Amino acid sequence: MAYQAGVVGGSGYTGAELLRLLAGHPDIDVVHVTAASNAGTSVGSLYPSLGVAYPGLEYAPFDPVALGELDLAFLALPHGESQLLAPQLVDSVPHLVDLGADFRLPAADYAQWYGGDHAAPELLDRFAFGLPELFRDTIATLDHVASPGCYPTAATLALAPLVAGGLVEPTGIVVDAMSGVSGAGRALKHPSHFSEVDENVSAYGLLTHRHTAEMELALTLVGDAPVQVLFTPHLVPMVRGIHATCHARPAVTGLSTESLLETCREFYAGESFVSVVDDPPPTKATTGGNGCLVTVRYDGRTDSVLAIGVLDNLVKGASGQAVQNANLLLGLPEDAGLVAIGMWP
Amino acid sequence: MAYQAGVVGGSGYTGAELLRLLAGHPDIDVVHVTAASNAGTSVGSLYPSLGVAYPGLEYAPFDPVALGELDLAFLALPHGESQLLAPQLVDSVPHLVDLGADFRLPAADYAQWYGGDHAAPELLDRFAFGLPELFRDTIATLDHVASPGCYPTAATLALAPLVAGGLVEPTGIVVDAMSGVSGAGRALKHPSHFSEVDENVSAYGLLTHRHTAEMELALTLVGDAPVQVLFTPHLVPMVRGIHATCHARPAVTGLSTESLLETCREFYAGESFVSVVDDPPPTKATTGGNGCLVTVRYDGRTDSVLAIGVLDNLVKGASGQAVQNANLLLGLPEDAGLVAIGMWP
Amino acid sequence: MAYQAGVVGGSGYTGAELLRLLAGHPDIDVVHVTAASNAGTSVGSLYPSLGVAYPGLEYAPFDPVALGELDLAFLALPHGESQLLAPQLVDSVPHLVDLGADFRLPAADYAQWYGGDHAAPELLDRFAFGLPELFRDTIATLDHVASPGCYPTAATLALAPLVAGGLVEPTGIVVDAMSGVSGAGRALKHPSHFSEVDENVSAYGLLTHRHTAEMELALTLVGDAPVQVLFTPHLVPMVRGIHATCHARPAVTGLSTESLLETCREFYAGESFVSVVDDPPPTKATTGGNGCLVTVRYDGRTDSVLAIGVLDNLVKGASGQAVQNANLLLGLPEDAGLVAIGMWP
Amino acid sequence: MAYQAGVVGGSGYTGAELLRLLAGHPDIDVVHVTAASNAGTSVGSLYPSLGVAYPGLEYAPFDPVALGELDLAFLALPHGESQLLAPQLVDSVPHLVDLGADFRLPAADYAQWYGGDHAAPELLDRFAFGLPELFRDTIATLDHVASPGCYPTAATLALAPLVAGGLVEPTGIVVDAMSGVSGAGRALKHPSHFSEVDENVSAYGLLTHRHTAEMELALTLVGDAPVQVLFTPHLVPMVRGIHATCHARPAVTGLSTESLLETCREFYAGESFVSVVDDPPPTKATTGGNGCLVTVRYDGRTDSVLAIGVLDNLVKGASGQAVQNANLLLGLPEDAGLVAIGMWP
Repeated sequence: MAYQAGVVGGSGYTGAELLRLLAGHPDIDVVHVTAASNAGTSVGSLYPSLGVAYPGLEYAPFDPVALGELDLAFLALPHGESQLLAPQLVDSVPHLVDLGADFRLPAADYAQWYGGDHAAPELLDRFAFGLPELFRDTIATLDHVASPGCYPTAATLALAPLVAGGLVEPTGIVVDAMSGVSGAGRALKHPSHFSEVDENVSAYGLLTHRHTAEMELALTLVGDAPVQVLFTPHLVPMVRGIHATCHARPAVTGLSTESLLETCREFYAGESFVSVVDDPPPTKATTGGNGCLVTVRYDGRTDSVLAIGVLDNLVKGASGQAVQNANLLLGLPEDAGLVAIGMWP
Repeated sequence: MAYQAGVVGGSGYTGAELLRLLAGHPDIDVVHVTAASNAGTSVGSLYPSLGVAYPGLEYAPFDPVALGELDLAFLALPHGESQLLAPQLVDSVPHLVDLGADFRLPAADYAQWYGGDHAAPELLDRFAFGLPELFRDTIATLDHVASPGCYPTAATLALAPLVAGGLVEPTGIVVDAMSGVSGAGRALKHPSHFSEVDENVSAYGLLTHRHTAEMELALTLVGDAPVQVLFTPHLVPMVRGIHATCHARPAVTGLSTESLLETCREFYAGESFVSVVDDPPPTKATTGGNGCLVTVRYDGRTDSVLAIGVLDNLVKGASGQAVQNANLLLGLPEDAGLVAIGMWP
Repeated sequence: MAYQAGVVGGSGYTGAELLRLLAGHPDIDVVHVTAASNAGTSVGSLYPSLGVAYPGLEYAPFDPVALGELDLAFLALPHGESQLLAPQLVDSVPHLVDLGADFRLPAADYAQWYGGDHAAPELLDRFAFGLPELFRDTIATLDHVASPGCYPTAATLALAPLVAGGLVEPTGIVVDAMSGVSGAGRALKHPSHFSEVDENVSAYGLLTHRHTAEMELALTLVGDAPVQVLFTPHLVPMVRGIHATCHARPAVTGLSTESLLETCREFYAGESFVSVVDDPPPTKATTGGNGCLVTVRYDGRTDSVLAIGVLDNLVKGASGQAVQNANLLLGLPEDAGLVAIGMWP
Repeated sequence: MAYQAGVVGGSGYTGAELLRLLAGHPDIDVVHVTAASNAGTSVGSLYPSLGVAYPGLEYAPFDPVALGELDLAFLALPHGESQLLAPQLVDSVPHLVDLGADFRLPAADYAQWYGGDHAAPELLDRFAFGLPELFRDTIATLDHVASPGCYPTAATLALAPLVAGGLVEPTGIVVDAMSGVSGAGRALKHPSHFSEVDENVSAYGLLTHRHTAEMELALTLVGDAPVQVLFTPHLVPMVRGIHATCHARPAVTGLSTESLLETCREFYAGESFVSVVDDPPPTKATTGGNGCLVTVRYDGRTDSVLAIGVLDNLVKGASGQAVQNANLLLGLPEDAGLVAIGMWP
């Protein structure tokens, strides 16, 4: 019999993507989905793509009692909201997978990057940092998971083998990353307006994007010294995809592209969803799938290391990784209901 | 044990889409894939999206002996090529599913629209016209199937309930349809060049597009009088999707939008992949899935009927429908390995 | 010395496009620009593309006194607003060019298609219907102009030679048209959200789109019998461009594609902005320019006529045509400040 | 009387863009245009956007005698070709503006980055490096100009004020840049195929892109020490636009974002085409115009400098800059025939 799941905040893009992915999950059934402003609306009317799979499902208002009867709940809420709702859920719902930023950072880091105190700091250590390839063991020991953001997943997976191996300096790291527009969600704002963003590239959040903190946190855990990153995100005219281009300075001599590729291959050996490739990976290779493709280069001319990671921000960067985490929490095969294969073209 | 399948012409987009879909099929395994100019190349190097699912698979040259050992073969070739290869396969391979245009039309129609005689007219009646929702019974009685084109599938599914019910005149039908660029395949030509087609819409194939014949053929079979269609295709700047906007004149009085919608709902009751919807269906609702969405209107002001059908040209318009046909040929559940759900956004 | 112009509603896309075009106009200077919610904002902060050309210009609130000191004013307002403001301007501003729908239709038609009475019906006959190629003489006799919409301009210019010559039946005309997203303006709504509209085509406004009335009005004026059109607009994933595909039934015998092309060429001989072309015209050929490209076909097989018109919805479909009308009102060369050439790629 | 100009290689995108821009130039007339494989074709048939402006113009084969009768010629050829043709032109054509890479680098640098000896090294010092904002004086003293590439123009204009002022270290500079697909030209190849590049971002030319050498050359000339850059280009799904994101380490203490912005403003004071802006500049603000927008940041947290430059790769990154250089060579106003204003949306 399948686990009964709920999606809190199912009217946004990560919620809709959870519904798409879980429609094909052999062991998890979505039986309850909530939305604030869209309560009372059918899933199919908001997402005609989902109508066939969920013919009778309507968005319900948030109801902790109803959620308490489920086996697990995904929280797919705007940043700041799950810390307000989690206190009503952490003890009654066996497993929470939070797709937002609220339970990813220690309280002090949260305050620094989000500009205010966390509303439920006492719950922070009940959530694992949900990057399975790096923290699988920790995830299995806790009840709840905070799935990391799309940019941090891409950049961290690209850099982790290098940082873990002590091959690059922990400071002076530069991450220039590009995101598809779906990363900004379904909310209406001019930077997501077709006529403004199509045929356009622009950087945003210069120096201060909050995902910086997640990259530094995860990479610091992987290595053995505080990691410092300058992260610059760019919005590019596509719907899905993250491309993280990462620069670091060597911490050792004798590096070569071949040795770095081999280091990465060994680091990710046996992983279902992270592949190390020789050529620069295109984001499109991951569209719709839970895969992350990584490559790396050593440039002798400038004595520097270049690492690239790509993924689909709504899958490996959000809802797919959330399902992967749920599988870990429930003791299911980590790849249940997920594919690594992307849709091309 | 799964059926062993081959894909002849697996380096094009419909071939690659077959590989993507069949990677998740519970009862069909692709064990052999051929390509002409790409023979010797690994599937993963041409399609990084597929590398994870087919780590060791390489494109082989065409080899009828190797194909003869399989349970079925998909032919995903440029128009005109499968009629040259089919004679070597029709008796040795239990089931062929041709995704090209070679076995869709009677010999006379073929000669009229393709401007030359068919090379293997004696084989034509061994292939069923593979629109399962309309010709399911015939498909099951033959060994081989000719899957129809993307435009004809969309337009025919939109118009079939109206023609079958005798509600519209069989002549004077107008189909204005729009296609994503993947419909033109992976071959290099200026109309598929990004800088030429992005931010651009243009009509093409005015008056003479060959898919006209398939629409007329299928709708004539569905109704009881020769159907005549003026079909105008348009290229629009997206990768996947067909939008068929169809106009017809009423053959009866007393029509209403409500009655027409009800006619369509009854016609497609129980179908897994065709849904009748109230609102104008967006192509995006079908992206990556095998669904086709249909709506219809009666306009009293101009006394005319408007029907719309949308689908993903590479799935329901090609490779997904081919799998659906293969399921029918093999006696599997018609939806095995297929989903109706689309990817949104 | 240049004419002093104002733009009322200069923060929307047609307003911004007026500013772009008039920055290069030799005889018209924009010295005043208003915006409601953006009053007090600099033009350059809202449109970084315009900052260089208008370094000091700020959006002012609506002020009929200030406008009354100008030589002309363009009204680039949401539909319904200019009928409320025009009474304060028609006598004090020598020339108004309204880009909205308020003064295009007779009062009865307006009420029928817009669902409510016109607020200033007594002013309607002081505005010419601003399609210069068809109504140049009328425009010159009036003080003010109502520039037609983007869809009507494209469809009417494609069909006008055929209707004027009595070559096609005035009823049973079908127009299937596609528009870039900028036609929906800068306002925030889900149908303009990048992630919803990219990789997507959908029809909208089925049976009831208000531009139908403008097409019927203009074509009825051009011919000598009431024209009836079924118009179906489609949204396609590009920023700019209108593609109007028009179908009509012949009213005479003996038509041919060659004769129809010749009819169109004669009809538009000497026009700066309408070109008759042999091949299906791509919208991209008009991007940024004030050109409209037209072609036509006769299909003997179905005995029907197909006409296509393309243009840039923000230029010939809005702001460029408004400048063309202003030139007529001011007695300037009709092409002053305008180019027909498009930007490719 | 206008200068008579020729375009050698007028069938590619930079050639077509030259024709578009020069159609509006008050003092330069294009009277001759050549193309290799398209000789005999009319400009209007290849570029319907240009048909109106050049109704009778046909592509001619290369003919040095015909070119020798002109006042100037633009060479818009694939890399490697102008060094083969230039010897026949440098003495007979008063002014050459080469848009290719052949005359930008010293012979040794050329050999290093292009992998072979230059065919006409003796002509290299007869071409000025055509970045007018930096080398205006040199350009005016020579007859011919080698216009720099799109990436180098964007990155160099962003970094030049910092390097010139000695504010950043000359080594360790990182440039991550994104380009629209038109930068790859009109030639047919899979990385320019719509279905491959749409909804896709990928890096390419890792470590070895030839534009690296131009950035290093220009910035070394601007500063006083050898500059070293690691340049990583990315292809993004848009037609036009370059976004260069540049990182450098401070060479002095006490930097601030405000001081760096002021440094840049002073450096570019009075320039028609380079604007320093406070917010991250979007590439779209430059579409179709000859403008380049620049911004800069100092990050105290990581002690690093971030500079961004954006432009339209076909205008300021190619044909617009070529016209700007031609104006300098001819003693015309530097902005003749050019606008800084972009097309938005």
